Amino acid sequence: MGSFKLDPRIEADTAYVADWGLSRVLLMNNARFPWLILVPRRVELSEFHDLKHAERMVLIEEISRASLSLKTLTNAVKINVGALGNKVNQLHIHIVARNEGDAAWPGPVWGSGSPVAYEQDAKAALIERLRTGL
Amino acid sequence: MGSFKLDPRIEADTAYVADWGLSRVLLMNNARFPWLILVPRRVELSEFHDLKHAERMVLIEEISRASLSLKTLTNAVKINVGALGNKVNQLHIHIVARNEGDAAWPGPVWGSGSPVAYEQDAKAALIERLRTGL
Repeated sequence: MGSFKLDPRIEADTAYVADWGLSRVLLMNNARFPWLILVPRRVELSEFHDLKHAERMVLIEEISRASLSLKTLTNAVKINVGALGNKVNQLHIHIVARNEGDAAWPGPVWGSGSPVAYEQDAKAALIERLRTGL
Repeated sequence: MGSFKLDPRIEADTAYVADWGLSRVLLMNNARFPWLILVPRRVELSEFHDLKHAERMVLIEEISRASLSLKTLTNAVKINVGALGNKVNQLHIHIVARNEGDAAWPGPVWGSGSPVAYEQDAKAALIERLRTGL
């Protein structure tokens, strides 16, 4: 089985925030939307049903925690949660804060335009806020 | 609080399949993709974190069950799971079977083209298969 290794495409698009009980918490490097990625630190998983029952119990609580914290932190109207994985097979869950009038509203963020990288300082400040607030 | 009532926009786009422990299982009336919707039969919920802990434990198992069954039943390459709710506030989870070369591959199904209604007979047959296979 080997040990957990983050998919290089996910790694290239994100910054490390924290390791929770099951998931690595990452910030998408896209200033257009406050956007977290949760990646369960397990190998060879691509679907929710690939996880063990007990791991799913942890994962849904981590999704819920990320969702509530990100909504509070960003004053978002709605959180979008998605696990797609058509391009990157490694199971990863998108948690995206949405607001009326944002760059893709009310459509999905996936497939909507190109990412805009954070300024270095803004990214560091946001990661700091996330580490405290999540 | 009142009792559970399916959002009329979800009702208009779907057909009833079954009631599970927590969720109503619906088939999206869109022949382009095998597409289920799970709606927890609770009132005034829009986010995962609005559910009680015990309900989330049930919901993630229902998501996992729908995902595995739909994948098996349709021979899909990947299941896409999403909870968006930017237009319809009532918490509902999309479970979509995806295959290379389908109408939106590898992009998301949300925001991709217009639904194509099932033929009446094909829809009835699929619902029957889902009731047996899910």
